[in-house]
Amino acid sequence: MTQTSTKPPSGTRDFLPDDMRRREHVMRVVREVYESYGFEPLETPAFENIETLLGKYGEEGDKLIFKILRRGEHEASGTADLALRYDLTVPLARVVAQYQAELPRFFKRYQIQPVWRADRPQRGRFREFYQCDIDAIGSTSPVVESDLLAAVSEVLGRLHFESFVIRLNDRRLLTALLDCAGVAEALHGDALVALDKLDKIGADGVERELLQRGVSAEATRQALTIFSGAVTDPADSDAVLTRLEQAVAGHERGGEAVASLRGLLTLTEGTAAREHIRIDPSLARGLSYYTGAIMEIAVTDLPGSLGGGGRYDQLVGMFLGRDVPACGFSLGLERIIVVMQERDMFPAKVSRSPVDVMIACLSDPLRPEAMRLASELRAQKLRVEIYPESGRKLEKSLKYAVARSVPVLVIVGEDEQAKGSVTVRDLDTREQTLVDRDGAASEIARRVRLSVEH
Amino acid sequence: MTQTSTKPPSGTRDFLPDDMRRREHVMRVVREVYESYGFEPLETPAFENIETLLGKYGEEGDKLIFKILRRGEHEASGTADLALRYDLTVPLARVVAQYQAELPRFFKRYQIQPVWRADRPQRGRFREFYQCDIDAIGSTSPVVESDLLAAVSEVLGRLHFESFVIRLNDRRLLTALLDCAGVAEALHGDALVALDKLDKIGADGVERELLQRGVSAEATRQALTIFSGAVTDPADSDAVLTRLEQAVAGHERGGEAVASLRGLLTLTEGTAAREHIRIDPSLARGLSYYTGAIMEIAVTDLPGSLGGGGRYDQLVGMFLGRDVPACGFSLGLERIIVVMQERDMFPAKVSRSPVDVMIACLSDPLRPEAMRLASELRAQKLRVEIYPESGRKLEKSLKYAVARSVPVLVIVGEDEQAKGSVTVRDLDTREQTLVDRDGAASEIARRVRLSVEH
Repeated sequence: MTQTSTKPPSGTRDFLPDDMRRREHVMRVVREVYESYGFEPLETPAFENIETLLGKYGEEGDKLIFKILRRGEHEASGTADLALRYDLTVPLARVVAQYQAELPRFFKRYQIQPVWRADRPQRGRFREFYQCDIDAIGSTSPVVESDLLAAVSEVLGRLHFESFVIRLNDRRLLTALLDCAGVAEALHGDALVALDKLDKIGADGVERELLQRGVSAEATRQALTIFSGAVTDPADSDAVLTRLEQAVAGHERGGEAVASLRGLLTLTEGTAAREHIRIDPSLARGLSYYTGAIMEIAVTDLPGSLGGGGRYDQLVGMFLGRDVPACGFSLGLERIIVVMQERDMFPAKVSRSPVDVMIACLSDPLRPEAMRLASELRAQKLRVEIYPESGRKLEKSLKYAVARSVPVLVIVGEDEQAKGSVTVRDLDTREQTLVDRDGAASEIARRVRLSVEH
Repeated sequence: MTQTSTKPPSGTRDFLPDDMRRREHVMRVVREVYESYGFEPLETPAFENIETLLGKYGEEGDKLIFKILRRGEHEASGTADLALRYDLTVPLARVVAQYQAELPRFFKRYQIQPVWRADRPQRGRFREFYQCDIDAIGSTSPVVESDLLAAVSEVLGRLHFESFVIRLNDRRLLTALLDCAGVAEALHGDALVALDKLDKIGADGVERELLQRGVSAEATRQALTIFSGAVTDPADSDAVLTRLEQAVAGHERGGEAVASLRGLLTLTEGTAAREHIRIDPSLARGLSYYTGAIMEIAVTDLPGSLGGGGRYDQLVGMFLGRDVPACGFSLGLERIIVVMQERDMFPAKVSRSPVDVMIACLSDPLRPEAMRLASELRAQKLRVEIYPESGRKLEKSLKYAVARSVPVLVIVGEDEQAKGSVTVRDLDTREQTLVDRDGAASEIARRVRLSVEH
């Protein structure tokens, strides 16, 4: 009859109820924790004017933006005026510029929405995925960084992640280290791209790439000593900081960056983040808009990260014309869910039946009575489904209720009606009893609660 | 510095925290009620393959679909392969066709997601808006229609809507009435478009339009008698049904449609929907895929509707190749919110401060101590914000906390530290007391609760 594919578009997914319950469990925890830190909800449109997005994510990023065709008479031009959101940070910067007067001076917002990237789809990488962002706007205080790290750590702790690592670095320190290694300033960007691959391609691979990109042999050697040395002993952050202090000795802004990291480390001592933090001078982070602290969260055995962030004091300025300090962190919902599913970390309640009571009605004239009983049961805070087809035989509805793992089936039939009662069947124990129609709702509620507790 | 506009794209909106809290309040109620009826959550991607959407919404609908430009080397072609979701019903039909084997036989799903239509933006009409849909798949039983109407009525009741009206009709009855009025079958579509405007352009206007569209003078007169007669006395549904029965006397399928409406009316007697239902033979509903009952909800003083729906037993068949019975209802989130805001229907808690306690830290070295206290307060289920800048003067943080309507300010300073205590200030009464640092968290929690209750 039709040839249309019924699959979702390449790189996207449909979330059936079981998926949705897992996703909502994670999002609920994220929201609760972020709100407990004083972050407030924000949402922005799925698409932005195309010029809002272009030029913010680097050349590679621009290529991955989904563009929307002009409409009406302009459709034929084949050009785009709108584009789908690529992340939640650039829309936030636009919002901050637009609503300056209405927003609090220290604006702390969270935003949980999908973003779209036309990446080549592959295992665990999607074209539509959710980001859970927190950002604090308006302050240069390291209290902001500490607060973000504490909040993210608490989210992961509440989800029962235990052995995650927060890699912490500073963009200014990276610059200083490259200066001290003798890498020419014009090559800093190239060098960071190469050094960022240390854990993927090893020291030999990085050496080759640095030389290829035009870094001198001496600077390459120096850079590798500084960066790979640091990674081999990441556990003791204080020791790493001392060594970094020596590495940037005499470089003024390098010294400031180390002092800033040390201050931040001290600040986190009162929080859940501290035990997870590892100062890691090899952390570079892809996006170009970072200006200070940068951070990323990894769990053992999962390639890539659960999320990352940093300070970006100049992005809002691209929209507003004057800089506004800002710092943020983004958790990737799908990566969290992948790990939680693989490691069986979801609580049992997430997979409980979505229905507490099913009502089977054995004859059509009794249907209004079944609807009435359903209303009464819902008033008892139960989730109630009426088996839609009525008929004398119980078999079908019973089988269906069992297949759906419903704990209790209530039978509304002529016999029951004649006795002023309903039949209540516990689908676990298979016990079946007649219950007075008066007060049936509260009695059934009592039994459901008993059954669920077992 | 930059010329980029910071406004959201035409027809879309940014939702700042106050908007978000109102939206979340409504969505929470919608979700809770729908779940209590056994509906389960579903989400589909923002975009679909373009052929999934085209041809499903009529010619006018097709024009309003946002299309996404092909990517990479195909971008230059100026053509589209994807398109943004136009409603939640067509994606559901695709999902039902794709996951037949995994879904329960009677699949009841709710879906709360944005849809996009390239309509001309105007007051209360947006290009991005949320729909809250419930649909029940797999049964032809009128229990389904009754359940949907009960659920939607309960949502509106819980949101404190009182005087809403559910207009109820049946597509098969419309066909029969047009047959009986003598409207040629080929003109049924045209006639319905005209008759749908009865409350907008009046009987005279509709008469003119019917004649223009080629309906004979006699059929026009007959149709107007049937349709406008019904609207003048919509309150007594039983009386309306009796009159309709006479109007379709001798028309077999017309008689069946009236009987079916009468049955549905009886079925709703045990539900919250019954008192709101008005049988209204002039209700047509725009979308062409309806096959049975159709319904729409209106409130006085609001042009247009809060939502609508109906039975569509043939849409899934467009994807699956064989028909699957289905019936659904869609509530418009934005219209509900517009009415609730105009009528001041939101509960006070929605506009409460997002922060329970603000901590002001009077010196940098005490910041880790402030972070620690914040952790302890969050463990008491309080929402805590640390004023990010520390300094000897309290003035700024105090002013900020008052402006943000925070009930309690806690001061961490050198003097307090020396006494092993913190200062707690009630920003409502302006009372300020010294509280022992040990046990400070639970004492502060107690005071916040007192303050919020006032």
